[in-house]
Amino acid sequence: MTAPYKRIATEEAFAPPEMVQAYFDLIDKDPHVDPGLKSAWGYFGRNPSPRALAIRERLQDLGARRIADMDAAGIDRQIIALTSPGTQIFNADVGRHMAVLANDQLAAAVARHPDRFTGLAAIAPQDPAHAAREIERGVNKLGFRGVIINSHTNDEYLDDAKFWPIFEAAEALGTPVYLHPNTPSRPMIAPFLARGLEMAIYGFQVETGFHALSLIVAGVFDRFPKLQLILGHLGEALPFWMYRIDHMHAASVGSGRYKNWIKLDKSPSETMRENFHITTSGMPWAPAIRFVQEVMGEDRVLYAMDYPYQYVPAEVTMSEQVPMSDATRVKFFQSNAEKLFKL
Amino acid sequence: MTAPYKRIATEEAFAPPEMVQAYFDLIDKDPHVDPGLKSAWGYFGRNPSPRALAIRERLQDLGARRIADMDAAGIDRQIIALTSPGTQIFNADVGRHMAVLANDQLAAAVARHPDRFTGLAAIAPQDPAHAAREIERGVNKLGFRGVIINSHTNDEYLDDAKFWPIFEAAEALGTPVYLHPNTPSRPMIAPFLARGLEMAIYGFQVETGFHALSLIVAGVFDRFPKLQLILGHLGEALPFWMYRIDHMHAASVGSGRYKNWIKLDKSPSETMRENFHITTSGMPWAPAIRFVQEVMGEDRVLYAMDYPYQYVPAEVTMSEQVPMSDATRVKFFQSNAEKLFKL
Repeated sequence: MTAPYKRIATEEAFAPPEMVQAYFDLIDKDPHVDPGLKSAWGYFGRNPSPRALAIRERLQDLGARRIADMDAAGIDRQIIALTSPGTQIFNADVGRHMAVLANDQLAAAVARHPDRFTGLAAIAPQDPAHAAREIERGVNKLGFRGVIINSHTNDEYLDDAKFWPIFEAAEALGTPVYLHPNTPSRPMIAPFLARGLEMAIYGFQVETGFHALSLIVAGVFDRFPKLQLILGHLGEALPFWMYRIDHMHAASVGSGRYKNWIKLDKSPSETMRENFHITTSGMPWAPAIRFVQEVMGEDRVLYAMDYPYQYVPAEVTMSEQVPMSDATRVKFFQSNAEKLFKL
Repeated sequence: MTAPYKRIATEEAFAPPEMVQAYFDLIDKDPHVDPGLKSAWGYFGRNPSPRALAIRERLQDLGARRIADMDAAGIDRQIIALTSPGTQIFNADVGRHMAVLANDQLAAAVARHPDRFTGLAAIAPQDPAHAAREIERGVNKLGFRGVIINSHTNDEYLDDAKFWPIFEAAEALGTPVYLHPNTPSRPMIAPFLARGLEMAIYGFQVETGFHALSLIVAGVFDRFPKLQLILGHLGEALPFWMYRIDHMHAASVGSGRYKNWIKLDKSPSETMRENFHITTSGMPWAPAIRFVQEVMGEDRVLYAMDYPYQYVPAEVTMSEQVPMSDATRVKFFQSNAEKLFKL
């Protein structure tokens, strides 16, 4: 598994056992529990299948088992982030507590394995001011190299300006924000849930693509032009829609259709190419990787495994065999991540 | 604009004036009107911008203006279908009436311009038995070459087996079903609507990709293995998700996650490659067209303009300049459509 580059996996997850227990408490005791949490953690947390069991055990390990898995799959370094839905399912009090707890646990693990682990800061967007301070603590005190946000926060999206202190802090610190999937928010999940389409088969990508597009339309990248947003799963299909999004955005702005839409400094596709980075998590598929490299540029596409949800060592080989030049492959596995995360 | 092939545009829309008026009646008089209809037809029907005005006029023309537009853009033939949301916003009584009315108007226009127009049959899925009969009338009496369905029918999806007489009739007659976008159904539209993302910038593709995937998961193509489904907009991104859909479907079936999921005869991607045709409507963009040709096969990707919503003659030239062999270009503009629609 040696290669003329380091393999840096950039969307890798962990869960503090205390948070898993808190999810179970919500599922068991809160009659108004988020239906997405109930589906996701009812499965990952309690389904008796070997797949679910392996995922929940691996998520809670930041030591020997994770290192052994990385060795077996040829992964040199993981960029590790609090798993979905993170703190964002709790009220602000519990959310703050879980963010700090998760960051302290992750920082300790990174300190034990500095040559293998890099951390992203968890935050509780429920309290934007605290979240901004936790980003600063994460970057300046704990050595983290970015921020993880697991899409909606109790059904709210970051296009609401009340959340923008989070983007302000990330931009000021020059650290990227990873917008990771969650199940669709309550006001859109019902049809997905009725069909088993609420998670990674379709709902995750709808929710997260929607969220990222809403940030563009709301002018987040006019307000924070240096902000870098990371999307997994090859960009949640937004690269596929680039042409149509540009066309329809221009047409609607041109005809004054939506009063709350503003004319943006850049087209949506320009924003994607200047403010987005894309990882391959769970999509080790040559046609799609090459397509996204073509439309986003090879400097903005990074390898990710999606450990432990998609711990499939054969997919590392698949990713390695995607046709690209040797120089591009070094960017893909190593140097794009080194640059983005300041490794 | 002459070329060594005919340009057949395969997702082109019309609206009977009576149906437009009925939409206005719903918007003005029904306090429970579908919010997607209100958004779409509030804009297309009444927005004073040149874009909306041109769309509503062209939609209602099946004569000289349409022919002149086709000539100006170099389109030899349009495959014409009742525009979204068609009959599917009405109760069953009005739906049946509108389907028959639309089919009679379209058949008359095709009879006047048989060398330029081909029709698809409108139906009212609200009454599946009537819909099946109208498909038969459309194909056998009116000379139509397929069926148009504009996604959800008053928030219901065709994965419900009560609708399957529609697929049974289409399969028996060997005629394809075009699953065209609509705004998202009520139980998912709210977050889209709040941000102006409910239409072709994002909501259409979420709604329609969701609908098509739900048909696969429900086993529609096990039950009707010869059925051909057509998706526009380069497949509503389902081709982009092929690998992930296969992976997650197999993982969930393997771990017994959803009790109502069945093991399918074919993987979702095999179903897409054997039971789907894809048109380019509104996506005249070389990287995405080439990607979809690569993963679906060049025999299953067809040119479409999306007239009159995206009547942009320069996009015909863009489509023509997409790198492909001369033989593939003939398939793309002409012979794939001739074969699918039995022209």
